[in-house]
Amino acid sequence: MLASKLYAPTLREVPADADVVSQQLMLRAGFIRKTASGLYSFLPLGWRSIKKIEAIVREEMDRANAQEIMMPILQPAEIWKESGRWKAYGAEMMRIHDRHENEYCLGPTHEEMITTLVKNEINSYRQLPVNLYQIQSKFRDERRPRYGLMRSREFIMKDAYSFDIDEKGLDESYKSMYDAYMNIFNRCGLTFRPVEADSGAIGGSGTHEFMAIADAGEADIVYCTACDYAANIEIGKPGVMKQDEEAYKDLETVDTPHASTIEAVADMLNLPLEKTIKAVVFSIDGKVVLAIVRGDHEVNEIAVQHAVLGTVEPEMATPEELEKAGLTAGFISPVGLHQSDDFAIVVDESVMETYNVCGGANKKDAHYININPKRDFDVDDIIIAPIRLITDDDVCPCCGGTLEHAKGIEVGQVFKLGTKYSEALQATFLDQNGRPNPMVMGCYGIGVSRTLAAAIEQYHDENGIIWPRAIAPFETVIVPINAKDSVLMEASQRIYDALHQADVDVLLDDRKDRAGVKFKDADLIGYPLRITVSKSTVENDEVEIQIRKSGETITCAIGMVTSKVTELLQDL
Amino acid sequence: MLASKLYAPTLREVPADADVVSQQLMLRAGFIRKTASGLYSFLPLGWRSIKKIEAIVREEMDRANAQEIMMPILQPAEIWKESGRWKAYGAEMMRIHDRHENEYCLGPTHEEMITTLVKNEINSYRQLPVNLYQIQSKFRDERRPRYGLMRSREFIMKDAYSFDIDEKGLDESYKSMYDAYMNIFNRCGLTFRPVEADSGAIGGSGTHEFMAIADAGEADIVYCTACDYAANIEIGKPGVMKQDEEAYKDLETVDTPHASTIEAVADMLNLPLEKTIKAVVFSIDGKVVLAIVRGDHEVNEIAVQHAVLGTVEPEMATPEELEKAGLTAGFISPVGLHQSDDFAIVVDESVMETYNVCGGANKKDAHYININPKRDFDVDDIIIAPIRLITDDDVCPCCGGTLEHAKGIEVGQVFKLGTKYSEALQATFLDQNGRPNPMVMGCYGIGVSRTLAAAIEQYHDENGIIWPRAIAPFETVIVPINAKDSVLMEASQRIYDALHQADVDVLLDDRKDRAGVKFKDADLIGYPLRITVSKSTVENDEVEIQIRKSGETITCAIGMVTSKVTELLQDL
Repeated sequence: MLASKLYAPTLREVPADADVVSQQLMLRAGFIRKTASGLYSFLPLGWRSIKKIEAIVREEMDRANAQEIMMPILQPAEIWKESGRWKAYGAEMMRIHDRHENEYCLGPTHEEMITTLVKNEINSYRQLPVNLYQIQSKFRDERRPRYGLMRSREFIMKDAYSFDIDEKGLDESYKSMYDAYMNIFNRCGLTFRPVEADSGAIGGSGTHEFMAIADAGEADIVYCTACDYAANIEIGKPGVMKQDEEAYKDLETVDTPHASTIEAVADMLNLPLEKTIKAVVFSIDGKVVLAIVRGDHEVNEIAVQHAVLGTVEPEMATPEELEKAGLTAGFISPVGLHQSDDFAIVVDESVMETYNVCGGANKKDAHYININPKRDFDVDDIIIAPIRLITDDDVCPCCGGTLEHAKGIEVGQVFKLGTKYSEALQATFLDQNGRPNPMVMGCYGIGVSRTLAAAIEQYHDENGIIWPRAIAPFETVIVPINAKDSVLMEASQRIYDALHQADVDVLLDDRKDRAGVKFKDADLIGYPLRITVSKSTVENDEVEIQIRKSGETITCAIGMVTSKVTELLQDL
Repeated sequence: MLASKLYAPTLREVPADADVVSQQLMLRAGFIRKTASGLYSFLPLGWRSIKKIEAIVREEMDRANAQEIMMPILQPAEIWKESGRWKAYGAEMMRIHDRHENEYCLGPTHEEMITTLVKNEINSYRQLPVNLYQIQSKFRDERRPRYGLMRSREFIMKDAYSFDIDEKGLDESYKSMYDAYMNIFNRCGLTFRPVEADSGAIGGSGTHEFMAIADAGEADIVYCTACDYAANIEIGKPGVMKQDEEAYKDLETVDTPHASTIEAVADMLNLPLEKTIKAVVFSIDGKVVLAIVRGDHEVNEIAVQHAVLGTVEPEMATPEELEKAGLTAGFISPVGLHQSDDFAIVVDESVMETYNVCGGANKKDAHYININPKRDFDVDDIIIAPIRLITDDDVCPCCGGTLEHAKGIEVGQVFKLGTKYSEALQATFLDQNGRPNPMVMGCYGIGVSRTLAAAIEQYHDENGIIWPRAIAPFETVIVPINAKDSVLMEASQRIYDALHQADVDVLLDDRKDRAGVKFKDADLIGYPLRITVSKSTVENDEVEIQIRKSGETITCAIGMVTSKVTELLQDL
């Protein structure tokens, strides 16, 4: 392809509202344009990279015996009502009426639809297992769309669904998808880790997230430096941190005017944070839930949800809810409080191992000192659970090794769904004994557009993107220093033809711009290799090949360019 | 691929609500499933064919220097309000609010969005021409979705948009797309004709529809048997039909009780239909429009719209509108009527060449006889225009040859848009003299899913589909008569490997079903070639190759299968 024919408007300035590097670079390099909040158009360069990711996904899915299909984006409300998710999905689901006032959603995912699709066709164990996937635009009405393609409202997703006769079959399907995902993200060139995760609103019994490691990631993960353990901190099981035993001192109330955060109290009373406890109050399924952790720990909302068997993600309790529960914001502790039908108290395990700590006195501008949970909490009337977030101060729950913390971009997730949807939607098959059983399901997602963004978050420098070869819009760019010089253009064309012939995905920058402009664009767009065709080298029948990743420049005989480029690309 | 692993549930019964052959066969052969009214899922076989059509479209678009992009499905209302189409599009446009009450539509087409996309990037004539396309799901809320994939509410479309500096450039872009479309539909194996058409709601100055000829088509076209002329009858220019001149007789009123159709009147008065005139009353842009054609002709609504310079498609006038205009339904003629600001009279050219004809007397249960339009109509106060539909009684307007009538499925359309959208959305560029000009646009659509349906409408028999090779889900199926016979399975596998090696898209039907079931499925699904591997032939080192299209069976040495199949496929 010729650069003069390519629609790739680059920008010299960093766009004002781009909040992460991948978004800035994709806008500057002419990969995407913003249409509205959370809505993007892919320009030719961006779409080429997306298609390469899609091709890798297809190959690996097909190799794993998954079959490609395409379901509608518009989904009738009825099937979501049957599964119970029409309400549960909340405001993130985009809903629409047709002219006859029938309700639909724009698919955020397709469990209900795929289950409905197969349930009338698969009747016998002989027809199982089946694994079906699609690559499609999905919709989520994010409250605050941000981070470019990483949290947009319309995004490209690969979603696959497996159907098996039993848990053993599901385990095999799951393993096969897990392996395919390893291959996909390896082939895309990402630095990533599969981590144990929470199954959230999708439901199910086991799940891994595939996390591209990057500072711009929204997920916090911990991983062991000694073994394979890695987990989203939402699910990472913290150990119990014991403090040195102390003799119980008497509970006392102290005045703490205006000190409504535990940091302010610790400061005022000159206490280390670990000698304090703090309260966070949630609303879960209409219940007010008081969560207590040590002052130096953070609450894991998902763990709190699990502890109270909540069906939806916790939300912070409103001032009205606090007041109704008789709680004084900023000054709460479980001392003297009791659970009821609409009020629960969840205390972290490590809190129970503290002595003479400071916490709220349940009245304004006052705290207790010398709280001893085992003495002062009604231990039969609270829930004790591991509800703090794991940190890199913890040890690996698998091997006791050292944990590290990292930020991750969730580019894929695999779920064991079990029979949640097949039971709700009556998707049964007859087993070998002629008895009906619900199909055992798994679901498997990859954020295709998010994978593109993640790659850029991982591979860039101050000059632009540094593409892994497999998903670069072009693998190589040829830059004749002067497009008006027919000698250079002829040499460039010869090299182009030879590379093209050898199946190298190559662009010839035949634009009449100055060399400096073309070099800048090449760096910004991030082609893995740049072949510079200049008078001085062509006279010696040579060109220069620059490797974007290392910056290294190699002089190469024109006759050897194809083999050299092919060789270099293998490592990129 | 192995048939035992393929998710392709076939049905023996014709589904009750399938109203055209393509829908029946795609449902029966396991290509699609219906999710809701006008919404379909593609199963693996259907999706394979769709992907083949998409690949052909991509190749021809890329060859024509169009570049693939992807715009969002969700489109902000603002840009549609700027172009004036937010209202004009009416109930067919699916509209949605996000959580912040911002309005969007689900893209039925993308003129507004593409114009908005390029207008900030293209500033100079040097950057033009540009042609951008995408292949994407589109949405139209049909009042009555029907005919399976041919009139569904969510469908796959390729839409391309060209931008040029002037009309001459547009002509070239248009020609290039026209040629690409010829290649695409030829390669897909369709029997089709490009026809002159009306540009409808999209607007613009010239357009061709690509019509797949099929009885199930919703469009009526005429084409010349002598020259290349072909037109949608909406736009086909009828000639003026002259009647033999007669001396004017006196206008008389006759009682025609309850005869409110022209057929009933002609019957009652024993007149041939061509000696009558009939009235159809429309509402266009809030104006009541009386259209008059000969009793044996039909009104062309689009021509009426053009005659009164209407901006929207005509609707039939309501009883209230008729009453308000003082018209007596069933008994209307222009005799004694006059136009006003909210009432227009449009008379077909051929009506003006009639003598002593019968028409309404503008009062209940009465008609005039001996109307002579040139005498009895106020010729200075009516619009005379060619507003009847062309028929195969007409002669070719190009060469005078004989016209034939056919039904067509519109699988593609190319439009010269001109500057309608670039002016509305201020998409200008600086010309060579530094002066701003609106870009001159074209747009070009292909119904990808509709093309699939059209191919089936054209190629099927009582046993199933007969795929053109290029878009068949598999090119060849290998059917071992008995999948439990290891000799047959080994021979089949060898043939499979050899064909696969030679890039033939082949399926091995390894299912343990009876041969009859597999043959029935092969015919229903419509693979172009079926290789039957049976004991009697394998013993002679031979197999039978059956051509689905002709039914012809060829005996072929196993060692020659690959070359024979490759040769046969070339003609299919």
